[in-house]
Amino acid sequence: MSGEETSKNLEDQRNLLDELSSRINSLLKLHNISMSLSEVFAIVDGVNASALSQADDGWLSMVAHSVSGELRLTLCELREQRLRSFSRKTSDASEQRLRLLRKMMDEQNLDGFLLPRADEYQSEYLPRSSQRLAWLTGFDGSAGFAIVLMRCAAIFTDGRYTLQIRDQVNEKYFEIYNTAEMLPLEWLKTNLVQNERIGFDPWLHTCDEVIKINSVLASKNATAIKLPKNLIDQIWIDRPPVPLAPIIPHPEIYSGEAFTSKFGAINAAMMENDEDVLVLSSPESIAWLLNIRGADVARTPLPLSFLIVKKDGHAQLFVDQRKIINETRNHLGNAVSILPFEEFGSELRALAQDKKKIRLDPKTCPAWVEETIHSVSGIIIRGDDPTLIPKAIKNSVELAGARAAHIRDGAAFVKFLYWFSLNSKEGQIDEIIAATKLQNFREKDSLFKDLSFDTISGSGPNGAVVHYRVTEETNRTIKLGDLYLVDSGAQYLDGTTDITRTIAVGDPGDEARNYFTRVLKGHIAIASSKFPVGTTGSQLDAFARAPLWAIGADYDHGTGHGVGSYLGVHEGPQRISKVSNSIALQPGMILSNEPGYYRSGAYGIRLENLLVVKSEVIPNADRKMLSFETITLAPFDTSMIIEGLLADHEKNWLNDYHEWVRKELLPLLNNDESAWLIEATEPIGSE
Amino acid sequence: MSGEETSKNLEDQRNLLDELSSRINSLLKLHNISMSLSEVFAIVDGVNASALSQADDGWLSMVAHSVSGELRLTLCELREQRLRSFSRKTSDASEQRLRLLRKMMDEQNLDGFLLPRADEYQSEYLPRSSQRLAWLTGFDGSAGFAIVLMRCAAIFTDGRYTLQIRDQVNEKYFEIYNTAEMLPLEWLKTNLVQNERIGFDPWLHTCDEVIKINSVLASKNATAIKLPKNLIDQIWIDRPPVPLAPIIPHPEIYSGEAFTSKFGAINAAMMENDEDVLVLSSPESIAWLLNIRGADVARTPLPLSFLIVKKDGHAQLFVDQRKIINETRNHLGNAVSILPFEEFGSELRALAQDKKKIRLDPKTCPAWVEETIHSVSGIIIRGDDPTLIPKAIKNSVELAGARAAHIRDGAAFVKFLYWFSLNSKEGQIDEIIAATKLQNFREKDSLFKDLSFDTISGSGPNGAVVHYRVTEETNRTIKLGDLYLVDSGAQYLDGTTDITRTIAVGDPGDEARNYFTRVLKGHIAIASSKFPVGTTGSQLDAFARAPLWAIGADYDHGTGHGVGSYLGVHEGPQRISKVSNSIALQPGMILSNEPGYYRSGAYGIRLENLLVVKSEVIPNADRKMLSFETITLAPFDTSMIIEGLLADHEKNWLNDYHEWVRKELLPLLNNDESAWLIEATEPIGSE
Repeated sequence: MSGEETSKNLEDQRNLLDELSSRINSLLKLHNISMSLSEVFAIVDGVNASALSQADDGWLSMVAHSVSGELRLTLCELREQRLRSFSRKTSDASEQRLRLLRKMMDEQNLDGFLLPRADEYQSEYLPRSSQRLAWLTGFDGSAGFAIVLMRCAAIFTDGRYTLQIRDQVNEKYFEIYNTAEMLPLEWLKTNLVQNERIGFDPWLHTCDEVIKINSVLASKNATAIKLPKNLIDQIWIDRPPVPLAPIIPHPEIYSGEAFTSKFGAINAAMMENDEDVLVLSSPESIAWLLNIRGADVARTPLPLSFLIVKKDGHAQLFVDQRKIINETRNHLGNAVSILPFEEFGSELRALAQDKKKIRLDPKTCPAWVEETIHSVSGIIIRGDDPTLIPKAIKNSVELAGARAAHIRDGAAFVKFLYWFSLNSKEGQIDEIIAATKLQNFREKDSLFKDLSFDTISGSGPNGAVVHYRVTEETNRTIKLGDLYLVDSGAQYLDGTTDITRTIAVGDPGDEARNYFTRVLKGHIAIASSKFPVGTTGSQLDAFARAPLWAIGADYDHGTGHGVGSYLGVHEGPQRISKVSNSIALQPGMILSNEPGYYRSGAYGIRLENLLVVKSEVIPNADRKMLSFETITLAPFDTSMIIEGLLADHEKNWLNDYHEWVRKELLPLLNNDESAWLIEATEPIGSE
Repeated sequence: MSGEETSKNLEDQRNLLDELSSRINSLLKLHNISMSLSEVFAIVDGVNASALSQADDGWLSMVAHSVSGELRLTLCELREQRLRSFSRKTSDASEQRLRLLRKMMDEQNLDGFLLPRADEYQSEYLPRSSQRLAWLTGFDGSAGFAIVLMRCAAIFTDGRYTLQIRDQVNEKYFEIYNTAEMLPLEWLKTNLVQNERIGFDPWLHTCDEVIKINSVLASKNATAIKLPKNLIDQIWIDRPPVPLAPIIPHPEIYSGEAFTSKFGAINAAMMENDEDVLVLSSPESIAWLLNIRGADVARTPLPLSFLIVKKDGHAQLFVDQRKIINETRNHLGNAVSILPFEEFGSELRALAQDKKKIRLDPKTCPAWVEETIHSVSGIIIRGDDPTLIPKAIKNSVELAGARAAHIRDGAAFVKFLYWFSLNSKEGQIDEIIAATKLQNFREKDSLFKDLSFDTISGSGPNGAVVHYRVTEETNRTIKLGDLYLVDSGAQYLDGTTDITRTIAVGDPGDEARNYFTRVLKGHIAIASSKFPVGTTGSQLDAFARAPLWAIGADYDHGTGHGVGSYLGVHEGPQRISKVSNSIALQPGMILSNEPGYYRSGAYGIRLENLLVVKSEVIPNADRKMLSFETITLAPFDTSMIIEGLLADHEKNWLNDYHEWVRKELLPLLNNDESAWLIEATEPIGSE
């Protein structure tokens, strides 16, 4: 684009905005809305920084209670116009940005700076305004940590991103490490010089992390310096606005329990534990406790905020007040005061000065909170976030919602499978087309809100990249002989789904069949396991791996994670993993069951359903026993099964599962889809 | 006994001692031994407080390098005479002892006193001089904790001892709790009053424990007071002497590695970690590192001592110097200085003042050590005891020793099984007779030193008591229809054994057979498992339980513990347990494999072999794999197996195992025993 064209473009844009502004100004006056034009622009820019889809106009409530007619159309036009003016282009600007950062460090007498891939809420999905690590280094994977010293800098990520990070980060400026081989703090310890001063942003590190940082630095007589303002924020000129999306009530027909009832239980526990105040810093916890949802980040309906709960049942929600639309204010009533985010610190200090016993979870709470309480010699009680377990144990309404959502999601998935079976053999479709098609089938559902994570759509060798995300560059045409792995899910108002199937396109060969069958054996071992009350997911994990271990194979990820109820698709605290976990499984918890096998450069296999923990009655049992109910519905590709490797009880499990899938889904399918499903779920090994 | 008789007895004893003393005096002079009579008496009393058997006269080296002839006989006579004069009788003296203790507390301005069942070394087996908890409360189980406040007192133990503790402790003086329901520090927290002062002996608590104690007390504004001297020691008038047994070198033909070589590896790690000094407080670690063994406590050949290792390769062993006989002094050479125990503190302080970086293991090191270093502002590095992993990984010589010991132990065990088969059906034998007979078979071995733990010999309902120890009161005649459970092991110079078998006397019925077969299935699942490098025992544990879980049953103990090489029969850090454990299994580690099932009031079942972790080669494997080699040899009772419950691979495993047992043991058995073994190991399920 030439300079002339650019300036022409800019002028056009400015004219358009001027014209829109004047129209909106008149309309605001016409409707008696006392909001300035610049306030409207701030809302629109914040909305564009949020996860609200273009089609979703719920944000208009943040302008006025009821917006319709020409004002509605004009505001939507403004949103679209402002979105276009966002520059999405990034370039390798690391050299210049590092130079600016080191200049800031020098001015503040710092020898180093710690930059985690984290926001104040330790979110899995970050708003763009919090993607400081990506801005500085170019790396945008979901786990990372950079350390910038004056003489050198390093960036760290885990095994999932070792390829991606080398692609995105310039090694001229950053040493690149896999955390399996070098932890950030180890590297820091080695590269530190005595008496150095290392800056960090206490908002972005948890209390537990800061203890570790302090201890590493102390061992070298160096000092960790809590910075009042993040250095990146001072040099990131075109930092996107923080997201702004309305917070809406999550109705009791989905949540199953009034938030006042949840409050009652939390307050009772506080009484029992002799705690005066509870600080919640995890947006998932706040969303669950208050029965509210937001749209600040992609894929998870989170309202980014902090909450202070007091023993007397009153709470304070610290949040951008524009997000609290009338409906939500009514929902929260007198029990919850809404305060601007900026008052969080002064409220905390006041409680601490009052010698209130303040509980926080050092694993998730920003160190800033602890620091603020300590600064006035307040009393801290460290303990697990008390909402974690009740949030994980879904009530009967949430479970009914999850089952219903899974039936509709299963029907959408089977429609996709049928479409895939028709179109995949001739090389007409690629990974992007397939992922888009699957999303289209899901979007037709009236309760659909978003995907629950970016779809993993990987064929052939791309399937072997465990956290693969298809891009224009990696996109691959699906060919005969491929295995195609699709891991996807959706956020419905009544539940969150997550399913993986691996589908043969033609004949991928017997070696792949052997691994597929063993992954399926592992899946069935988990799905059909019975275990006593008190058992953790860590205890069950090896059941999923044993069939692979028998031939010297394994997979490098967990077997199952907790799943929220129209909340995070990755939710703690329970999980099925070889990493030890002390959380006993309890009836009502939802978990994924997703063993896999990955042959680098060739194919990936993963088979995932969601499970609900339930009570299991066994005649003459000594113990109270539990088992799983599978709630995901979609056929497994029986063409990939080597029947001789399955024991009778495994064949029975599979046939029963397929029969149930047919029974539930046929009513939701058209004739062609039904015929396909009936054939796909033919019983195997019938003698 | 009347007063007159008592005084007559005492006079006789005194006369005998006078006469012995004068003989010994002359003999000492005759042999030019410069030791006073009172020094000789102290040695003899210490030896009697140790675990040295009456037949073992190795202790004579502590009197002089070479003792023979009349002096030898006379000294042995003295030992026997002094042993007879020990009073072993205990009575319920809790009331008086508590009164004395509270008087001491009052004098020292204390409101409470903590008394763990522990010595300075956190030993599993305590010398009698350290059995303070038993002295105060009467309870002598292997896990306990008492808290004495001015107004009340409580004692805590775990589920294994809930029956025994009610038998031994007077509830008038102590509230009795199961730690599964109430932890000592929870109770303390509830019963404390603000500002109270609670005393504890920093020698008997680990560093980690004291952190917890301090934090509980701080939450109540109370204070933990480190006592310079244990209160019990100040009121326990007739406290037995501390044990005194010679420390002897453990030759390289058994240890497989010179201690200087072990030192080299430890020193290299210290260099790498930038540590100047290592404090070892665990006698097992010291025994392993220095290739020495002792006889201070029963069942484990431990030299009770502390060790300081310096980065330059020099070490200081703090120990009663009388234990270091010439042979041991020569063995240790210049690398290890022997210092009296009393100098441990001053040496530590000097190193700390010198700002040496001192590493200790907070999980086992007495808080006294940390306190001593802190008192002069020394530098502490907290880290795992670095001998744990190399000690756990047996070298090829230790493994060869273990295999040899197990073959001889297996032969002794089969001789016992044959004897049992002849004598158990007619009600002629009881649990004590059986345990004694088994011990007699083992004692015939020339490398036998001791049992590795008190034999568990339980028939019928006694078998359901997991840590049953037969006493005169509980002893039960073995009858037709009983299940008999025997868990036993021995300390041989070349290895430590631990085996459990459950034997049918006649027909115990199909219900018991069902459980027995499922326990066997779990045993085989562990024994035949294959798993990748990096796997922990926690990951495997559920394999052993799954066959029981399937019918709603389980067992409340771990599946396997580490085993030492002529050292502790319970050795860390690896184990197979549902309790999470981060220690990856490595080739050369020895573990037990002992699933069980217990039907309270009816019978107990446990089937235990020892395993060695080994590399496993699988064709076309992606991963480096491991598996187990079973090293224990003795038949399982096939009359208890329901063959229909075993899969083919399980039958094959059992038949292969029995074939190996026959092959190895038949050469060591007489004709009758051989015939019995051949019949007992008939292959099952041959089609």
